[in-house]
Amino acid sequence: MGEQLKYLLDESRIPRRWYNIQADLPKALPPVLHPGTMQPVGPADLAPLFPMELIMQEVSTEREIDIPEPVRDIFRLWRPTPMYRARALEKLLDTPARIFYKYEGVSPAGSHKPNTAIPQAFYNKEAGIKRLTTETGAGQWGSSLAFAGALMGIDVTVFQVRVSYDQKPYRRALMESYGARCIASPSMETEFGRAVLAKDPTHRGSLGIAISEAVEIAAQRDDTKYALGSVLNHVLLHQSIVGLEAMEQLQMADAWPDVVVGCTGGGSNFAGISFPFIGAGLRGGAKPRIVAVEPAACPSLTRGRYAYDFGDTGHMTPLTKMHTLGSTFTPPGFHAGGLRYHGMAPLVSHLKELGLIEAVAYNQVECFAAGIQFARCEGILPAPEANHAVKGAIEEALRCKREGRAETILFNLCGHGHFDMQAYTDYAAGKLTDQTYDESELAMALSGLPSVPEPA
Amino acid sequence: MGEQLKYLLDESRIPRRWYNIQADLPKALPPVLHPGTMQPVGPADLAPLFPMELIMQEVSTEREIDIPEPVRDIFRLWRPTPMYRARALEKLLDTPARIFYKYEGVSPAGSHKPNTAIPQAFYNKEAGIKRLTTETGAGQWGSSLAFAGALMGIDVTVFQVRVSYDQKPYRRALMESYGARCIASPSMETEFGRAVLAKDPTHRGSLGIAISEAVEIAAQRDDTKYALGSVLNHVLLHQSIVGLEAMEQLQMADAWPDVVVGCTGGGSNFAGISFPFIGAGLRGGAKPRIVAVEPAACPSLTRGRYAYDFGDTGHMTPLTKMHTLGSTFTPPGFHAGGLRYHGMAPLVSHLKELGLIEAVAYNQVECFAAGIQFARCEGILPAPEANHAVKGAIEEALRCKREGRAETILFNLCGHGHFDMQAYTDYAAGKLTDQTYDESELAMALSGLPSVPEPA
Repeated sequence: MGEQLKYLLDESRIPRRWYNIQADLPKALPPVLHPGTMQPVGPADLAPLFPMELIMQEVSTEREIDIPEPVRDIFRLWRPTPMYRARALEKLLDTPARIFYKYEGVSPAGSHKPNTAIPQAFYNKEAGIKRLTTETGAGQWGSSLAFAGALMGIDVTVFQVRVSYDQKPYRRALMESYGARCIASPSMETEFGRAVLAKDPTHRGSLGIAISEAVEIAAQRDDTKYALGSVLNHVLLHQSIVGLEAMEQLQMADAWPDVVVGCTGGGSNFAGISFPFIGAGLRGGAKPRIVAVEPAACPSLTRGRYAYDFGDTGHMTPLTKMHTLGSTFTPPGFHAGGLRYHGMAPLVSHLKELGLIEAVAYNQVECFAAGIQFARCEGILPAPEANHAVKGAIEEALRCKREGRAETILFNLCGHGHFDMQAYTDYAAGKLTDQTYDESELAMALSGLPSVPEPA
Repeated sequence: MGEQLKYLLDESRIPRRWYNIQADLPKALPPVLHPGTMQPVGPADLAPLFPMELIMQEVSTEREIDIPEPVRDIFRLWRPTPMYRARALEKLLDTPARIFYKYEGVSPAGSHKPNTAIPQAFYNKEAGIKRLTTETGAGQWGSSLAFAGALMGIDVTVFQVRVSYDQKPYRRALMESYGARCIASPSMETEFGRAVLAKDPTHRGSLGIAISEAVEIAAQRDDTKYALGSVLNHVLLHQSIVGLEAMEQLQMADAWPDVVVGCTGGGSNFAGISFPFIGAGLRGGAKPRIVAVEPAACPSLTRGRYAYDFGDTGHMTPLTKMHTLGSTFTPPGFHAGGLRYHGMAPLVSHLKELGLIEAVAYNQVECFAAGIQFARCEGILPAPEANHAVKGAIEEALRCKREGRAETILFNLCGHGHFDMQAYTDYAAGKLTDQTYDESELAMALSGLPSVPEPA
């Protein structure tokens, strides 16, 4: 039995401005390149896909960007989210460390994804857009955009990777309950999808293919734009609300982190919890260690190359410089579907290159064991993605124990596991194994990276 | 897009005392009878099953009962729960009514059930009990007691109705993730289970059979007691925390309900939201209408008989006077598993007889339609059980529109639907139909009610 300590902010304390780390970077982000000309893209190049407000956020170097009041109003449905001190976990680990976690699973979609889905839907609505297209794997992002579309009155079409569409019907049911249209990808609705199916009618799909399909539809129609749930600068900007709230909550606890831990797939929840703390350090404040935890089976930060690459398989997206396993790399089928992406957010990648963050990779079985340990003492069952952050935090707490250091650890519990019970069923049955990728496949994917002249 | 209005209490405002409606009843509850002697049971008769603190709460007529501080500490994990004003739903319905809802889905188990699971585990732990047995259908209660057991350090064994055990493995996975043991019922582990299986080795089980198995195990062992998730007075007492918080939150909104709506299975979430308001009315305050919404396929309040009956199929429980469809009545397999019980809480039944509450029954398809309507404007997808309360609230709001009355409606959104996506999948596919029971089966079940002499 553990004493629970919750740090709750009044809803008037929902941040009024997002934090933009681009204002504080010691070195600017490498430019995004047009795949045809290899020249930096301008706002006009992105206009077919995104409304101008989001494009401006993508390139802004203003430190603070106002959160529109209608967006804050909807945030009040679940924000500010609670921050807890994990006293029971501390006792179990017998660590001198203090462990805090921010819990984003209280959102109606069960994860942090609505933090960006709502503003993206808002800016598109303001720009007169009638429909958004997107892709989703397991469905966390697709269901969050469907939720946002329902509340904002904007149609949502989701291309879901076929293997997930077939095997995990429950996130699809959530998307459809919110009124979104969900299409198995590759589909017959796009040129790219038809081309893929012509080669292989039974293709199981991939996130890269689904992105290509969603982008193709959005690029064709004036009333339709595209939305992405991670990777891009404006998405990471929107997630900064997580870290900004956590800062205020830690002050309530009279604490400041020595270590900040988040799991990384595309990078958005990690950026959300960590960027405000990194920024405070860059502006002369205390500099906590920042630890990105990724799956060993899809290790873009620890095994990928920092290079220009495409975000999608159809090579319709611009080229961004990022840690990548190659756009043809197919991650093995581990359960943390939200972490199965070949690339990493350019901003997160850049910070890694600048030595401002660390990265570590863990296997899925040890991450599930950590999640179960957490659930049994703290009471919340984490999503498989979040189990990576739990594992990272536990390892830091055990290091503190070995070193006899009473450090303060903060991690982001980015979602609950209620949609992921098949994974826990498999874990309990001993059927869960560590997945590995083929080294030669990784080498081949990396050798296929586009060749880009170094910018001057 | 609807303005969201959330009413949040600081955690210091978690109630310090439960409200016991037995203190304010104009007429005392009929006694619980021993099935052998037909005489009122005393505390000693219940001692094999429950710790004395809970037995004392069961029979107490004190108005306020202290909530132990360690229980309040754990409540802080998710309480106080938010109350919202459903502005977007009001707009959609174009009603002059104000609609408020209390949301219990933020608990780690996703429903209101931990409100009683935690104190039940606590009092058992205090009494030196090592293990709790219980039954569960779809699994809301079983997973909540498993959660409580994990946090309190007490073993939990759950007998789950076999058809749910086989068809709905995800709640079982949640119970097992919390460390509970989950057994398909009927099982070979009890005398009663073996007898059922001897007659029918493929028996699909029922809640009544699972109760009998759980009670049998608890009665045999000194270190083991039994826990029930609804129906009993002490369970309803623990749920009063919902209504007590809602009262304070309505005062923040400068509002008082004209109508309070809750769904009813065993009666616990309905009692939780409504009893404090009924009590205030009985003590001379305003008297809101109180509306219990039940499934048309299991209509204990609207079609059942008010009579003494058993709580279980094996007839091991005492006899309580309640609205019942007969302990041999098997409800059809509709999706709101938490509402599939032949009886109704004695306290709820008593209030119905006293004319202090109303009851109405709706079919499942119209309830799912209401739930979808709610999700698309308010953002939260309700559990199938909660859809009944949503439907009830919508009907009241539409009545207000017809009558041109600006009433205030409060309902209990007792859980989220994230574990119930198969039901929504079926609904979207048009496969969901209204279930009906066989009138002759109901007549037979009612004719088999035990014959009990009217008490003097």
